[in-house]
Amino acid sequence: MYRKIQITVIGDSLEFEENNRVAYELGKFIAENGWVLITGGREGVMNACSKGAIEKNGTVVAILPDEDLNLGTPYKTISIASGIGYARNSINVLSADVVVAIGGGSGTLSEIAYAWAYNKPIVAYEGCEGWSKKLANTSIDIRRKDKVIGAKNLDELKNILKREVERLIASKRLAN
Amino acid sequence: MYRKIQITVIGDSLEFEENNRVAYELGKFIAENGWVLITGGREGVMNACSKGAIEKNGTVVAILPDEDLNLGTPYKTISIASGIGYARNSINVLSADVVVAIGGGSGTLSEIAYAWAYNKPIVAYEGCEGWSKKLANTSIDIRRKDKVIGAKNLDELKNILKREVERLIASKRLAN
Amino acid sequence: MYRKIQITVIGDSLEFEENNRVAYELGKFIAENGWVLITGGREGVMNACSKGAIEKNGTVVAILPDEDLNLGTPYKTISIASGIGYARNSINVLSADVVVAIGGGSGTLSEIAYAWAYNKPIVAYEGCEGWSKKLANTSIDIRRKDKVIGAKNLDELKNILKREVERLIASKRLAN
Amino acid sequence: MYRKIQITVIGDSLEFEENNRVAYELGKFIAENGWVLITGGREGVMNACSKGAIEKNGTVVAILPDEDLNLGTPYKTISIASGIGYARNSINVLSADVVVAIGGGSGTLSEIAYAWAYNKPIVAYEGCEGWSKKLANTSIDIRRKDKVIGAKNLDELKNILKREVERLIASKRLAN
Repeated sequence: MYRKIQITVIGDSLEFEENNRVAYELGKFIAENGWVLITGGREGVMNACSKGAIEKNGTVVAILPDEDLNLGTPYKTISIASGIGYARNSINVLSADVVVAIGGGSGTLSEIAYAWAYNKPIVAYEGCEGWSKKLANTSIDIRRKDKVIGAKNLDELKNILKREVERLIASKRLAN
Repeated sequence: MYRKIQITVIGDSLEFEENNRVAYELGKFIAENGWVLITGGREGVMNACSKGAIEKNGTVVAILPDEDLNLGTPYKTISIASGIGYARNSINVLSADVVVAIGGGSGTLSEIAYAWAYNKPIVAYEGCEGWSKKLANTSIDIRRKDKVIGAKNLDELKNILKREVERLIASKRLAN
Repeated sequence: MYRKIQITVIGDSLEFEENNRVAYELGKFIAENGWVLITGGREGVMNACSKGAIEKNGTVVAILPDEDLNLGTPYKTISIASGIGYARNSINVLSADVVVAIGGGSGTLSEIAYAWAYNKPIVAYEGCEGWSKKLANTSIDIRRKDKVIGAKNLDELKNILKREVERLIASKRLAN
Repeated sequence: MYRKIQITVIGDSLEFEENNRVAYELGKFIAENGWVLITGGREGVMNACSKGAIEKNGTVVAILPDEDLNLGTPYKTISIASGIGYARNSINVLSADVVVAIGGGSGTLSEIAYAWAYNKPIVAYEGCEGWSKKLANTSIDIRRKDKVIGAKNLDELKNILKREVERLIASKRLAN
């Protein structure tokens, strides 16, 4: 296939220093691995992660709630103007091979819930407050046998993400 | 205004006896009060609640994920075929004056998260397992000062729902 | 089934006297027949048609592009706040048993195109300018064998609508 | 800004030799200019255009109606699984700096209508049957003063597309 692995990173649009720092480093890591970064294209974790990936010449997709493709984070190589408001949260995670959550409020919670329903691997950072920490190492409901995968620090987050991508490639679920 | 108060009831599409019993009684109560019932139009809580409302001659709207308006629960007086899959969860709660959660898995969780983000009053039933119980009497994030309102049993659920509707009417936020 | 026949009326949000007059009379006719009226909930034809139906105690659903269910025409008994912008045009026609177009610009054109793709019967008023007149008695593409059904005046519009509804009922495609 | 110019190409999912030939050549041209190609990710014009762009190492985004990001054309470097069915037609054109139509049935018609409503420059190929030919050099409604720009052959199509992109860049509407 021509498409690359797609990693969606979700988290708060409010600005928290630790969340943004981890998101920025993760963005660099995603780009260095040659994966595509997808975010909701707004502030906070989305912007910080996109900035990191851009600095490493990554491909960065912003899936905006807005009708105007020039809004949102400047750190994007491709802008998807969904125009469907926060219903776009569903698209953010449907478009992921793996979903990574860093902190997060109600918007992030809706995305973790969708990611679970859509049977996506979910990696949740435990090093900052928010829904990623609360849901790490738990099951969202009885429909799946696995759990949201907790990552205690940035190194563990990178290792787990790499392992999950390798598992997907090995499983040949990346057809087409 | 010509429109009536709209109550969206969310909960699991899996069939649980206690959840369905409460949903069915709540549906009757909503219809008896002359309010419009909105659900996602599928099985479980959605179907049971709709059945209760239909038996009391209520107006029942099913907002389906599907393209075919003849799918979903038969207990509906109006069928909205959204055709947008589970992104319709956002519409279910946007269309509510008050949201009531009874149990629920990942789909319901996404709807509670949206309802919080959209600043809707949320009443969560505590008498059965699921996300309504887990989130009752908690804050989803720091954007709101209030909490998801817990209801310990059916009578309390009815009383709180009535109180929330009266509060909305008194606040005159129901313009137009 | 408990649900009633659902008629979606589409047309311009700009105000044209003749279009609005026909829409208003059609709204009354839809309500008198006990059918549910669905519109996009905005100005012009949508508002005029809804007003007519309300005056005859009809059930009127507004499927708004907005996140706020109190926006749009005041003449609605049920408000669906889609929050997905003009992507809601797809929902307007998916939720119809029969679609009626009265005049219309680009928004209406997108809805006629969707209605054709979704295999809905489309009745197009020929008595005023706009896309309903341009597309009356034509095929939108080769996927269907039939045509957009032209109606030269209000009486013909009513007769054709009644005939199409009876055909649907006879075909038993209104299952559930 | 980091993002590149985004060109959305729309047209029939049915297979027509001439339409596909033009789409394929246009895809190569878009990639050679360093622009991003966006399509609806399905068969026919979408697939042919994507194939051309891939052969010239272009960036190709498929915005699928489906929930599964591995569906649709294999010729894509990025897959957006919208999961919202044909409501995604709105996103296809909202995400464009310039829209190009090659032939097309009802789906393409809905996209031209949206593109007009969203004030996008629209270039319509006149060399094959379908909605691009019918609407070339016409106004969709009175909301805009300009027209759908007709292109009689592939060379003219390329020249007009280049001119429209240069006009956008000069207008500095590509902020951020």
